[in-house]
Amino acid sequence: MNIKPLGDRIVIKVLEKEERTKGGIVLPDTAKEKPQKGEVLAVGSGEIIDGQKVPLEVKVGDKIIFSKYAGTEVKIDDEEYLILRQSDVLAIIQ
Amino acid sequence: MNIKPLGDRIVIKVLEKEERTKGGIVLPDTAKEKPQKGEVLAVGSGEIIDGQKVPLEVKVGDKIIFSKYAGTEVKIDDEEYLILRQSDVLAIIQ
Amino acid sequence: MNIKPLGDRIVIKVLEKEERTKGGIVLPDTAKEKPQKGEVLAVGSGEIIDGQKVPLEVKVGDKIIFSKYAGTEVKIDDEEYLILRQSDVLAIIQ
Amino acid sequence: MNIKPLGDRIVIKVLEKEERTKGGIVLPDTAKEKPQKGEVLAVGSGEIIDGQKVPLEVKVGDKIIFSKYAGTEVKIDDEEYLILRQSDVLAIIQ
Amino acid sequence: MNIKPLGDRIVIKVLEKEERTKGGIVLPDTAKEKPQKGEVLAVGSGEIIDGQKVPLEVKVGDKIIFSKYAGTEVKIDDEEYLILRQSDVLAIIQ
Amino acid sequence: MNIKPLGDRIVIKVLEKEERTKGGIVLPDTAKEKPQKGEVLAVGSGEIIDGQKVPLEVKVGDKIIFSKYAGTEVKIDDEEYLILRQSDVLAIIQ
Amino acid sequence: MNIKPLGDRIVIKVLEKEERTKGGIVLPDTAKEKPQKGEVLAVGSGEIIDGQKVPLEVKVGDKIIFSKYAGTEVKIDDEEYLILRQSDVLAIIQ
Repeated sequence: MNIKPLGDRIVIKVLEKEERTKGGIVLPDTAKEKPQKGEVLAVGSGEIIDGQKVPLEVKVGDKIIFSKYAGTEVKIDDEEYLILRQSDVLAIIQ
Repeated sequence: MNIKPLGDRIVIKVLEKEERTKGGIVLPDTAKEKPQKGEVLAVGSGEIIDGQKVPLEVKVGDKIIFSKYAGTEVKIDDEEYLILRQSDVLAIIQ
Repeated sequence: MNIKPLGDRIVIKVLEKEERTKGGIVLPDTAKEKPQKGEVLAVGSGEIIDGQKVPLEVKVGDKIIFSKYAGTEVKIDDEEYLILRQSDVLAIIQ
Repeated sequence: MNIKPLGDRIVIKVLEKEERTKGGIVLPDTAKEKPQKGEVLAVGSGEIIDGQKVPLEVKVGDKIIFSKYAGTEVKIDDEEYLILRQSDVLAIIQ
Repeated sequence: MNIKPLGDRIVIKVLEKEERTKGGIVLPDTAKEKPQKGEVLAVGSGEIIDGQKVPLEVKVGDKIIFSKYAGTEVKIDDEEYLILRQSDVLAIIQ
Repeated sequence: MNIKPLGDRIVIKVLEKEERTKGGIVLPDTAKEKPQKGEVLAVGSGEIIDGQKVPLEVKVGDKIIFSKYAGTEVKIDDEEYLILRQSDVLAIIQ
Repeated sequence: MNIKPLGDRIVIKVLEKEERTKGGIVLPDTAKEKPQKGEVLAVGSGEIIDGQKVPLEVKVGDKIIFSKYAGTEVKIDDEEYLILRQSDVLAIIQ
């Protein structure tokens, strides 16, 4: 992947599953709830805490749960990614 | 359990008891007060305080009282959990 | 007592005295001013200040004056308690 | 005095002087400006600054000028006191 | 002078000059701009920065420029003074 | 380049590409989305973290993604630049 | 110059150029954009960062770009100056 996030930031690909109502109707994009799961594609060099660089807990390849509405959407080569801070990551799914 | 919360976060299962009014009527979900008790299912690696990682006071299995409306609800494999920060935990019930 | 408050928190029992108007009428609950005195039932393990755990100044059994409206009310075994932070304690009555 | 304020707090007695308009009329209580002078009755154990307990600059018996509207009024044995933080004290009158 | 300001505070006397419009009319008090110059009458014991007491840069007798609307007006023995924090002092006029 | 940004600031040239709608119409300036990519032209001397100057992660020549609406536009010799803080830089495109 | 700014403050003279519209009309003062360039006339003794006085990066004589609307206007001997904090200085023009 050709983006290097800065500091305590990570780049993720949002994991979406096809959403169907009970009656089987595929919901158009705007009716779906904002997704909360993603896969980590790149991680920054670490967070500076009290003058020391601490590597991130999150690794490339982790599946994560993140805060709704967190982060900034970016489009690179027609692909959409989300850049989050590690503090927006709630948990890693194992 | 297959979620690993990050940093000073914990994953809890909210403890609900069936709620009846004095007249014996079971209240539907929306009329109940938001619950404040939970059981800890997973704890993060610790809180960073002045550059040092301090393990959490809360342990897996603890029954806790937490601030109303705190945390983020997540649904994993059709089960609902709550991800809190340790600072939202008021006390441990012994 | 079977609640262990976390960190710099304490559990108190609010001290209420029967309130009468000058004419001798006992005031119903909603007309009384919010109480400001309590007795400490349990104290947390201490406050972390600059990376060091400092034991609380408040001890179990102390009668305290606390900020109006501070803290969170909890009900355990049908008893009502108040969980405060030590910083909400204004003074100890000796 | 039987109140021990916590940390960087002090207990003062507000100094009021009888207020007369130029025409000699004694003003009722609500028309007077909120007082800004007080006498220190009790001081806390000190302020914690960068992990060290620093004794307060204000001593028992000092006459002080304090910020209008600062502090919390408390009534103990039918006497009214004011609990302030040392940071609400502007100056000591010598 | 008989006021000792606390910490990083100073006591100043506001320097006002008679203000005339171009046509020579002396403006009444409410039409004048709030003054921004003062003379320092007393200084506090210093500012605590990272646990160390640092003496103030401003000295008694300095003429200073201060932020409009900063500080608290106090009246002592019918004289009006202004108590400022050193951080409200913009510059010293030499 | 003849601007030296201060501290943790950087000077960038915003990278714009000609924007066409699907029907081939060139959009006038106000209809385009605010750009998010830029090239770094100058970097400050570093960020002060806990009393130590830490050189910036971003280097002259880097292509970066930055937060929408971040920074201050400046015009020097009829050229428009953007001055950002490094914290507004989300990622470096490699 | 006879003003000594305090701490991390600087005194600048705003650099204005005569502004003409394309049609050659000289714009009156209120129609001009607020200027963003200035020359440094005096600098403070330095910024205190983590307990140590760090000299300012900006020197007397520097031409600077500063944040629009930053600082406080002062008038000394009928000359108008602007007192800024160094953090309001975006860059030095070389």
